[in-house]
Amino acid sequence: MTPEEFRAAAHELVDWIADRRAAVESRPVRPAVEPGDIVAALPAEPPTEPVGARQVLRDLDQIVAPGITEVQHPMHFGWFPSNASLSSVLGDFASSGLGSLGISWESSPALTEVEEVVVDWLRQLTGLDDGWHGVIQDTASTACLVAMLAARERATDHRQTTTGLGGLEHPLCVYTTAEAHSSVRKSALLAGFGADFIRLIDVDPWTRDMKADALAAAMAADRDAGRRPTIVVASAGSTGTTAFDPIGEIVAAADVHGAWVHVDAAMAGSALVLPEKRELFAGVEGADSLSWNPHKWFGTILDCSLLYLRDPDHLIRVMSTNPSYLRSTAGGEATQYRDWGIPLGRRFRALKLWYQLRIDGIESIRSRLRRDLDNAQWLAEQFRDLPDWEVIAPVRLQTVCLRHTPSGLSGEALDDHTLSWVRAINTSGSAFLSPSVLDDRWMVRVSVGVESTERHHLEQLIELMQSAVAA
Amino acid sequence: MTPEEFRAAAHELVDWIADRRAAVESRPVRPAVEPGDIVAALPAEPPTEPVGARQVLRDLDQIVAPGITEVQHPMHFGWFPSNASLSSVLGDFASSGLGSLGISWESSPALTEVEEVVVDWLRQLTGLDDGWHGVIQDTASTACLVAMLAARERATDHRQTTTGLGGLEHPLCVYTTAEAHSSVRKSALLAGFGADFIRLIDVDPWTRDMKADALAAAMAADRDAGRRPTIVVASAGSTGTTAFDPIGEIVAAADVHGAWVHVDAAMAGSALVLPEKRELFAGVEGADSLSWNPHKWFGTILDCSLLYLRDPDHLIRVMSTNPSYLRSTAGGEATQYRDWGIPLGRRFRALKLWYQLRIDGIESIRSRLRRDLDNAQWLAEQFRDLPDWEVIAPVRLQTVCLRHTPSGLSGEALDDHTLSWVRAINTSGSAFLSPSVLDDRWMVRVSVGVESTERHHLEQLIELMQSAVAA
Repeated sequence: MTPEEFRAAAHELVDWIADRRAAVESRPVRPAVEPGDIVAALPAEPPTEPVGARQVLRDLDQIVAPGITEVQHPMHFGWFPSNASLSSVLGDFASSGLGSLGISWESSPALTEVEEVVVDWLRQLTGLDDGWHGVIQDTASTACLVAMLAARERATDHRQTTTGLGGLEHPLCVYTTAEAHSSVRKSALLAGFGADFIRLIDVDPWTRDMKADALAAAMAADRDAGRRPTIVVASAGSTGTTAFDPIGEIVAAADVHGAWVHVDAAMAGSALVLPEKRELFAGVEGADSLSWNPHKWFGTILDCSLLYLRDPDHLIRVMSTNPSYLRSTAGGEATQYRDWGIPLGRRFRALKLWYQLRIDGIESIRSRLRRDLDNAQWLAEQFRDLPDWEVIAPVRLQTVCLRHTPSGLSGEALDDHTLSWVRAINTSGSAFLSPSVLDDRWMVRVSVGVESTERHHLEQLIELMQSAVAA
Repeated sequence: MTPEEFRAAAHELVDWIADRRAAVESRPVRPAVEPGDIVAALPAEPPTEPVGARQVLRDLDQIVAPGITEVQHPMHFGWFPSNASLSSVLGDFASSGLGSLGISWESSPALTEVEEVVVDWLRQLTGLDDGWHGVIQDTASTACLVAMLAARERATDHRQTTTGLGGLEHPLCVYTTAEAHSSVRKSALLAGFGADFIRLIDVDPWTRDMKADALAAAMAADRDAGRRPTIVVASAGSTGTTAFDPIGEIVAAADVHGAWVHVDAAMAGSALVLPEKRELFAGVEGADSLSWNPHKWFGTILDCSLLYLRDPDHLIRVMSTNPSYLRSTAGGEATQYRDWGIPLGRRFRALKLWYQLRIDGIESIRSRLRRDLDNAQWLAEQFRDLPDWEVIAPVRLQTVCLRHTPSGLSGEALDDHTLSWVRAINTSGSAFLSPSVLDDRWMVRVSVGVESTERHHLEQLIELMQSAVAA
C-alpha cells in the first residue's frame, strides 16, 4: 500500500471512526452474537486476491464492528470502565504512524525518553514521591507477574542465576486475599510459587479489606514452620467490591520478614489523581511496587499499565540481557526499558498518554472522575430507598454492588433470580452489568465510569433494573 | 475530545503520517541525539493547561519524530526488519478506533473470532497442518516464556497447583545453543529453571546449527544424573547468523525424554510463506510450539507475534483463571484467549493482519520476500569479490554477516577497526548496521528486508562501507 493509497483510505477510516463514536448510543451495548457467528461470517481460507481498502472498511462496518461489546457505550456498566478517550486514540494513531521499534534506547530514543517523561508526569499527578521509577507494561496482570519475579529473586538472592527454584529448602509464600484479582493467583503460579503456598488472608466481612493482624500472624506461622514470606499483593480497589487493603499496616507486617509489597491498583489507581482520595492508599510509599492502568477509568486506550518501582536496579538485574547485537553503537548511558519487563520489542505506548494529558488536560480528567464518584454515590442512595434492593458493599469509588432479594428468596433460588434478571438486561443490549460472586452468592456490580455516562443514563438503568426484576 | 475535534485532528495526523512515510528517505536513519536530549526538550512537570491537537502534532513533528531511528528507511539494515506496512497501520488504526476490550469472548466476540480466523489463515499460508492452533502474543520473548511455562508444567504434572518448583527432586533442564536469542535464556530464568540447568549445545562451526547428536548426548547425561530434560528451544533463523537448528532431529532426540520442543522462528518464520524455503523448517510438525513475528520481515506493524501450539488445552490448564466476574452471561462455548497467555486484557491485534493480508495480498508479500532473498545473495556475492572482505556465515535468508580484515589486523585491533567503521556509518545517519559478536570477535550484520529497500540501496551501502573502512 503506497502512502497515497494509505492517505485516502485512512481519511475514510477516520470519518467512520468519528461517526461511529458520535453514534455510540444508538447501538446495543452487547452484540446479539453467539460463539461462532463471526467465524462463520468470514472465509475459512485465506484471501488469494487483494481487495481495496474500501471493501475492507465495509466488512469492518458490517461484520466486525457489530461483533464487539460497546465498552464506550454510556450504558456499559460491566467489568471496569475501559475508556478510550479520543485524545489517546489520536496518540495511538501517532504511535502506529511512526512505525518505530522499541528494543533498545538506540532503536528509538524518543520512545524511551517520552516514556520516561510521561510516567514521571503521572507520578507527580498521582502524588507519589520522587523515589518511584515507572515503566509502561501492557496490563496489570503482567505487572503483577513482574513483581512476583522480582520478589522471588530478592528473597532467594537471585537464585535464578544458579539452581533456580528446584531444591529450595524454604518454600516461598505469597499473601493476598480471596478478593484479589485472578491475575494474582495466576502470576504466583507462573512464577513457580505453588498453590500450596498462596495464603488468602482474612478480610473484614463488610469492607473486604485484608486484616493486617491476620497477615502478620500468617507470615509468622510460615516463618516458624521454615517457610519464607516473600511477597504480599495488596489490592487497592479490588475487582469485586473495590476493597482497599490497608497498605501502611501491610508494609509494616511485611517489613518484619523483608517481604516484597506489591500494590495492585489496576482500576482504582486512577483515583490517585484526586488528592481527596489518596487516603485510601495511605502507606503506599512503603511498598516496593505499584501498578495501575490508565487504560481503565482514566481513559487511555488499552493497553497501558503503569508499573512503579522503588528499586528498578533490582528488577533490571532480574530481567536484564545484554546481547552483543543490542549494544549501542553510540556512547552514553541510557534507560533500556527491555530490562524492566518481559518482552524485548515494545510499542511507543507513551504517546497515547502524552496526547491525552496534553489535549484533555488533567483538570478535565479529574472533573470526570469526580462526576463518576458522585454518580455512584447517588445510584447507591437510590437503591437504598427501593424495596427489596440491597447495597451489599461499601461504595468506595465508582462501583455499586447490589442484590435484589424479594421476600422468600434465598440460596440457589436467589442465584437463579439474580442471574436471570442480569442476563435479561445484558442480552437485551440496553445496558450491560457484571454479575459476580460475593459470599458464595451471585450479586451484580454496577461499575460507573464510562466517559459518556451521565446521570440520566443511571436513571435509565434504574428503570431497566426495576423492570427486569419484575419480569 | 469530542468526535468532531478528533475528526479534524486525525485528518491532519493522517496527512502528516502519509507525508512522512513518503519522505522517509530524506531523513537520517539514525537520529543525531544523545541520551537525555529528548528528556531535556520536554517539560519536567506535567502540563496544567490543555493545548490544541495542532500544537501536539507540532511537537510530535519537531521533538518526538526526529528522535526515532527510522526502521522504515530503505538504508536501515540493523537488527531485523521491523516493517510496518501501511495496510497494517490502517488495521491498527481500526483497532484503536473501535476501542474494544479483550478480556473474554463476551467482552468483544469479534476480537476473539477474527483472531481465530486470521491465525488460521496464516497457518494455512505457512504450510502448517491443521493440528496447530494459534494465538497472537505481543512478542516472541513472551511466546518463549509461555512455552517454557507450559513445558515446565507438563514435565512436573502441573506442580504449580501444589508445591510449585520448590523442593523438586529432579532439576529441570533446558537445551538451546549459544546462538539462540537472548530471550531464551531470559525466559528460562524467569520460569525458574536456573542458569545451572541451561545447556548450550554445540553447533556446527560454519552453519552454527545445533548438533543433534550433541543434544541427544546432553539429554541422556542429564537423565542419567537424575535431572529432567524438559524443553529444547530450537532456533529457526538465529539472530546472529540465521542459523537453523535441525528441527526433525531435535524432535526425535526430545521425544526420548518427553521433552517439549519450542521453535523460535521470530524473524525467519516469515519465510514459511515461501514453499521453497520450508525445507529449512523440516520436522516442525513434530514440535510442541512454534512462534514467529509477522511484525518483522512480513510487515505487520509491531506488536504481533504468532504462537502455534499442538495442544492448546494443556496451555489453557496452565494459564486458566475463571473468576466469577468473567463468566459469560450468555450461553455457548467460546475461545478465551486470556487463557492462552499472560495478560488478561488484550488489544484487537488481529485487525492489522486482516487488513494487511486483504489489502496487500499474500502474493505481493511473497514477491517482496523473494526480492529480499535475491538482494541478500547478490550482496554477499559482491563482498566475496571485494578485497579484504569476508562473508563469515552462510546466507540462509536475508542476513549477510561480514567482516573487513585488512592484512595485519587481528584480535582487539580488528575489533577496534570493525566497531570504528560501523560506528562511523551509523552515526552519519546514511545507513544503519548492527555489529554483533561471532567467535568472540565483532562482525557486522547486514539485515536486508525493509519494505522500501531496493537493489540500488544495496549498491549505495557497498559504497558507504568501502569508504568507511578506508577512512
